[in-house]
Amino acid sequence: MLQSKLFYKTQKQTPKDAEAISHMLLVKAGFVDQLTAGIYSFLPLGFKVLKKIENIIRHEITATPINGQEILMPVLSPKENWQKTGRWESFDALFKLKGKNERDYVLNPTHEEIISPLAKKIILSHKDLPVYLFQIQTKFRDELRVKSGLLRTREFLMKDLYSFHATENDLDNYYEKVVKAYFNIYKRCGIFGQNFKNGPTYKTWASGGSFSEFSHEFQTITEYGEDIIYVCKKCGSAINKEIKEKINGCPNKPCKSNNFEEKKAVEVGNIFKLGTKYSLPFELKFKDKDGKEKPVIMGCYGVGLGRLMASVVEVNHDEKGIIWPKEIAPFLVHLITIENSKKMEKTAQKIYNDLQKKGIEVLYDDRQDKTAGEKFAESDLLGIPFRIVISEKTLKQNSVELKERAKDGIRMVKANQLVKFLIANL
Amino acid sequence: MLQSKLFYKTQKQTPKDAEAISHMLLVKAGFVDQLTAGIYSFLPLGFKVLKKIENIIRHEITATPINGQEILMPVLSPKENWQKTGRWESFDALFKLKGKNERDYVLNPTHEEIISPLAKKIILSHKDLPVYLFQIQTKFRDELRVKSGLLRTREFLMKDLYSFHATENDLDNYYEKVVKAYFNIYKRCGIFGQNFKNGPTYKTWASGGSFSEFSHEFQTITEYGEDIIYVCKKCGSAINKEIKEKINGCPNKPCKSNNFEEKKAVEVGNIFKLGTKYSLPFELKFKDKDGKEKPVIMGCYGVGLGRLMASVVEVNHDEKGIIWPKEIAPFLVHLITIENSKKMEKTAQKIYNDLQKKGIEVLYDDRQDKTAGEKFAESDLLGIPFRIVISEKTLKQNSVELKERAKDGIRMVKANQLVKFLIANL
Repeated sequence: MLQSKLFYKTQKQTPKDAEAISHMLLVKAGFVDQLTAGIYSFLPLGFKVLKKIENIIRHEITATPINGQEILMPVLSPKENWQKTGRWESFDALFKLKGKNERDYVLNPTHEEIISPLAKKIILSHKDLPVYLFQIQTKFRDELRVKSGLLRTREFLMKDLYSFHATENDLDNYYEKVVKAYFNIYKRCGIFGQNFKNGPTYKTWASGGSFSEFSHEFQTITEYGEDIIYVCKKCGSAINKEIKEKINGCPNKPCKSNNFEEKKAVEVGNIFKLGTKYSLPFELKFKDKDGKEKPVIMGCYGVGLGRLMASVVEVNHDEKGIIWPKEIAPFLVHLITIENSKKMEKTAQKIYNDLQKKGIEVLYDDRQDKTAGEKFAESDLLGIPFRIVISEKTLKQNSVELKERAKDGIRMVKANQLVKFLIANL
Repeated sequence: MLQSKLFYKTQKQTPKDAEAISHMLLVKAGFVDQLTAGIYSFLPLGFKVLKKIENIIRHEITATPINGQEILMPVLSPKENWQKTGRWESFDALFKLKGKNERDYVLNPTHEEIISPLAKKIILSHKDLPVYLFQIQTKFRDELRVKSGLLRTREFLMKDLYSFHATENDLDNYYEKVVKAYFNIYKRCGIFGQNFKNGPTYKTWASGGSFSEFSHEFQTITEYGEDIIYVCKKCGSAINKEIKEKINGCPNKPCKSNNFEEKKAVEVGNIFKLGTKYSLPFELKFKDKDGKEKPVIMGCYGVGLGRLMASVVEVNHDEKGIIWPKEIAPFLVHLITIENSKKMEKTAQKIYNDLQKKGIEVLYDDRQDKTAGEKFAESDLLGIPFRIVISEKTLKQNSVELKERAKDGIRMVKANQLVKFLIANL
């Protein structure tokens, strides 16, 4: 992509209501734009990151052993579905509206009320179980107040997976597989793994409702998080605030320590054993091998994509801007020329073409009315992993200057070795 | 995919309100499920088709010369944006709702009111033009009545492209390029091209509003269409009803014939020269080369994905079921075994693996409790392009039976030549 053609504009000013670093950086760098409080557009740079996160999630959720089948359920649903579970009244943040046909609709904040009656049409026998369905789709919460950019919004993209089982044991096994898949997602997005000594994203014990003792959240440590978690200093397990107030000692069975460290965090996922909570009101039953009708056992598993994107920025940035992990960066290479000669343009164009032919995504800063300083500052703000600079000086050595956004130090690479070098360092 | 694991169920009964063939077939074959009037879920089979249509559209719209940059704008927008253009009052099918914060929102039926003020933040100079932005996103229309399955719904997926230009001439040139891209889309989806002597999708002259004499629709001929178009018997040009009442003779300049054939059709796209209709109320201006501020000239270009999918079925089916065009079929191959021996299972499994290794999508009907007749009837209903049958008879000849859904006749292909044969016939 030529930067001169890219639909974006960086801002010098910090948005006036921005508290979270991710909010400030994503708006200043032109990744997202606020339409109104809690409602954002994703501009081309932000959309590219969102799409990469979406594809990582899709890959992990469709792969064995998760084997999710993708569907797409509606944004609108009828009041009746929500009355059946009592959530028409009890779900506080429900956006409600009335159509011209005088019918009441909900803007779905989650889809148990839609997927349960849908599954009832198809699941009849134990032979139809287990089955795993997911979607990646826009959801809504009528929050009275919103803040922190993409960390808490009224409209948001979510991946929601629902699993349907014949037995609790089968749900328990699947649940643990989803935990692993979630950590794969967080690792690939750059908020879990060796860099962070298995932080800064924790699987956190949370309240489980009536069916199971615990549910779990995935919480990423950041000082702008709205949640408080407690990390056990002995075993590294984490629990949320609600659990902290209920239990005595670390819930990780062999540990039981009572020495916790308090941290601010943002929830980047949650998984829940629903049991028969939704299958009972919708009469979602199956005929078991013994010929008896039994309620289907359900689990649900959510990840918010925009919030995940913001959390990545919370964890991966410095005072100059964003530092995108390679797998979700909008481009892998930022190619910059800093003087305007014919020869330089020709060299840059060749490198640009060569990289693209190899399938490497490049943003080429071809603008001739910007100074080197302006280009570098913007490059740091945008946070593309590899920066390649071509100048009169490097041209004389048939070389380019290569800098990794995440590391200090610059190295010179021969122009004709660049593609090879980059592929080796991906 | 193993058919025994696929989340679907075919129905013998026709949905009670189904008039359109596409509605009947997509519901009976388990591609979509109606949640409530005008609101549908896409099940795994339907979602696969939808995603392929989405990818064709994305490919054609991002490719040169269209060069669309993908973004994602919100579903919700504030009342104020719609008051600015007068459409808060004048847009009849607007879904409106109020949040807890006492603010009024719209469920966006289109995005001129959102993209114009967004573009204003980024387009300042003639150097920022032209620029082309699109999204693929859910939209809403509060229709008093809906019918015909996916042909007219309250909630629908759309690709909407917006172009921004410095001059009318630049818009005119781009507009013609979009026409070509649209025909590429319709051709790849199987509703335009040689098979149909350049029908059954027509570019149709339509009313243009104040800025240009005409806009255009793309109309696919089907007896369940809600629109009427008139096809010129002399030159093959088409006009919609509104234009027919206004003009005298074919608007295709050298023709001028008055001999039209009336056809029922469904609108699968529309393109519109907006001019300054939205740039004026939102003060979307740019500084031209001459230093003067001028309003940006806009165009907009829409395609409904669900409606396109339904139109494909309207055009591609027979009395037994759907006949998916290869490029948008949920699977390319339907592999069927019709007796249950170990040897057959082993042969089928090998073919299944071999095809998948070559990147060919296969649905393998591995169910052992269905008769050959049941499997064949369902296969015809689902409409997968190639059907491969393995039976005791074919096994004896080390062969499989191959049938194309769109053609009569069966041929025998040696099992070890099958992959090669299929790849050659894609």
